[in-house]
Amino acid sequence: MNYAELADSLRQAMEKQDVIALESLVAEFQPADLAEFLRHEEVDVSLKLLAHLDIEERAEVFGYLPLNTQFQVSELMTAEGLAQLLNCMDSDERADLFNIMDEDRQTSVLKLMAQEEREDLRRMASYEDETVGAIMTSNYASVPVTDTVLQALDKIRKTAPDAETIYQIYVLDKLHRLVGTISLRELIVSRPTALISDLMESELITMSPDQDQELAAKMISRYDLLALPVVDSQQRLVGIVTYDDAMDVAEAEATEDILKGGSVGGLEGSFKDATIFMLYRKRIFWLLLLVFANIFTAAGIAIYEDTIAKYAVLVFFMPLLIGSAGNAGSQASTLMVRGLGTGDVKLSDWAKLFAREIFVALALGLTMAFAVAFIGHFRGGMEIAVIVALSMIAVVMLGSLLGLSLPFVLHKLGLDPATASAPLVATIADAAGILVYFGIATAILGL
Amino acid sequence: MNYAELADSLRQAMEKQDVIALESLVAEFQPADLAEFLRHEEVDVSLKLLAHLDIEERAEVFGYLPLNTQFQVSELMTAEGLAQLLNCMDSDERADLFNIMDEDRQTSVLKLMAQEEREDLRRMASYEDETVGAIMTSNYASVPVTDTVLQALDKIRKTAPDAETIYQIYVLDKLHRLVGTISLRELIVSRPTALISDLMESELITMSPDQDQELAAKMISRYDLLALPVVDSQQRLVGIVTYDDAMDVAEAEATEDILKGGSVGGLEGSFKDATIFMLYRKRIFWLLLLVFANIFTAAGIAIYEDTIAKYAVLVFFMPLLIGSAGNAGSQASTLMVRGLGTGDVKLSDWAKLFAREIFVALALGLTMAFAVAFIGHFRGGMEIAVIVALSMIAVVMLGSLLGLSLPFVLHKLGLDPATASAPLVATIADAAGILVYFGIATAILGL
Repeated sequence: MNYAELADSLRQAMEKQDVIALESLVAEFQPADLAEFLRHEEVDVSLKLLAHLDIEERAEVFGYLPLNTQFQVSELMTAEGLAQLLNCMDSDERADLFNIMDEDRQTSVLKLMAQEEREDLRRMASYEDETVGAIMTSNYASVPVTDTVLQALDKIRKTAPDAETIYQIYVLDKLHRLVGTISLRELIVSRPTALISDLMESELITMSPDQDQELAAKMISRYDLLALPVVDSQQRLVGIVTYDDAMDVAEAEATEDILKGGSVGGLEGSFKDATIFMLYRKRIFWLLLLVFANIFTAAGIAIYEDTIAKYAVLVFFMPLLIGSAGNAGSQASTLMVRGLGTGDVKLSDWAKLFAREIFVALALGLTMAFAVAFIGHFRGGMEIAVIVALSMIAVVMLGSLLGLSLPFVLHKLGLDPATASAPLVATIADAAGILVYFGIATAILGL
Repeated sequence: MNYAELADSLRQAMEKQDVIALESLVAEFQPADLAEFLRHEEVDVSLKLLAHLDIEERAEVFGYLPLNTQFQVSELMTAEGLAQLLNCMDSDERADLFNIMDEDRQTSVLKLMAQEEREDLRRMASYEDETVGAIMTSNYASVPVTDTVLQALDKIRKTAPDAETIYQIYVLDKLHRLVGTISLRELIVSRPTALISDLMESELITMSPDQDQELAAKMISRYDLLALPVVDSQQRLVGIVTYDDAMDVAEAEATEDILKGGSVGGLEGSFKDATIFMLYRKRIFWLLLLVFANIFTAAGIAIYEDTIAKYAVLVFFMPLLIGSAGNAGSQASTLMVRGLGTGDVKLSDWAKLFAREIFVALALGLTMAFAVAFIGHFRGGMEIAVIVALSMIAVVMLGSLLGLSLPFVLHKLGLDPATASAPLVATIADAAGILVYFGIATAILGL
């Protein structure tokens, strides 16, 4: 049965309160699918359905739920039940949940956990949000550097049930320092008596727990890693970041950049499930900021009110010209911000790209000028055609070069280049465009 | 040595023509890093440096190069050299390269390849761009369903050097049909005499080669898979998509959506390396389309030219009002398009989201109206303040609801919802905003 069929059958079994059918259906779901199903159910229903799974499966399904749903479900559990669940969860996921529980709950749950798990949870929960530490897991497979292949394989077999991956194995010295890595692939094709120290890869790619999570995702993608080891300042292994967490981080970071590109503050969690107040809060800041920025455009218009009164036809071309400035600027900033985001472009490339953009924008401006000159001629005669064409070339170039440069300026000011959103660039280009347009018009019309 | 140090040393060795240093340095690079280095060198230099690696490593580094660089380097190779390289490349990567070679070159290279590799290349090269078939590899590890664990492990050891992953193993029947999967983790912890058929997972997640590559990336991310099996209509295994390729696809698709969001046609390859003409071509279409759409805004202004002539102060508020309509619209469409892109939102959610948006937009519009009413009063008295405030509420709601709905409309027309870019939404919202603004003004001023 596929997801839709399973979901339908499960809903029917729930209605009929057919516990036997229910139990077998719940077991048939992929863990990610069951989590998807539970997301749309009431919290108490989710809790009841989860109770049909054994603790290991329950922890896995639970881990796929959005964090706020995890929290709501956990609030309905006894401290004992929750402690038991936390024991079986992945170490990075349980730390996230732990961090949003209130202090009393944290204390009562910690008391009920085994000492080893408790210490691990305390350590993992201490890392700042969005750092490598916050997404790493301490469930890795490791072997001593003095082992033979046979000894190592024996250890791996014993670690297998708990480790998040056993395909990349970390080689440690007596002081728990990372000295190498070896893949399970290498282990199973090697002579059982060979020494790990002779086989291991010792050119290591590592990160420290306080680095940016986005960087870990980029490294994993760049080097096609299964997992990235995280070491402290003494080179001791403290955890690993696995490729599946890196994929989630990459998606979340892309979403953040896209929303910034549309002038929406970073929305945590689902858009679908967001409340009216959350959406209001994430949008009003930029709307207000931009409306005040638009006052510069308005001021530009006010300066030329006399020109406008004499040549009302100039107002007709305003949206075409300032719109084009904004659109060309949005294009340039979008290309730039994404280039910086993927690492394709570096800030040091700015001068080279600026030089190229001059030619691109000139070509764009000329084409656009050609297109609007006819309309200008038709609506206002030759003089207006010349004004409109010249203004178009100027504003498209201005908008493009502004759009390309703004991300760099923001970076220099210590802000995220992705803040150079299409609406922000368009607003700045509008204000500059108005001045250029009416400036050219005033000069040519001799006002 | 890190990447920057290695790159410096390599550059020095190249200048001094120190072949011995060069050879040892080239070997020290991570394959992805050496490819990054070669990307910025002349093509003939890249070819010479690659020659210092053995064929397996050369094929790996080569695979990390951008496709157009791969092509340029391959053009300098003899047919024999290229055939040898293709033999060692991943089956999906070599098919991509093969597809952009000219026909004569294809024929001469195919002749020099081993029969098995030749057939594989022909088959892999036949899949359409952006499909699952185009990103899958045929280098998977498989075992017959009748094997025991011991037999299977023996086979895996032999396949290991060629397979892209041996951690997920595909279980096939006599007719090459996929009947199950088993992980290497499971294999190494199981009794050697146990039967694969008893251990394997037979609830399978599969795709067909003609499905969209984006869907494969989403499935791998959703179910945290290492690899996704691809089967034909008879359920025969034809390839697998690995997680690292899925990460690349996810990044490319995010880039495509982001560029669309800034009204830039999908730019293939690097922004940094793009030519002036490529950038011109990708941008001019939307700029021209939007400038003609702006004519509607201009026409709106033309209708109210008399009103404008009498009350020049109304022009002052034009950029504030239509800017806010566009910005609110950009925010709503950005949230919507990304929600659709990640699968958070479905098209069937539209009515529910529209209802919520009414309240969000009303709250936003009221706040914005409050902010601009003062400026209105200051510049034009009470009447103007009322006009500006009412118009602001109306245009923010209009822009928001338009921005939210446009992605759905585009989808219904068979277009990509991501085409609802910030500039497009802003342009449409501008035109509608002008009519609302001057309409309200004309009514209140009794013109």
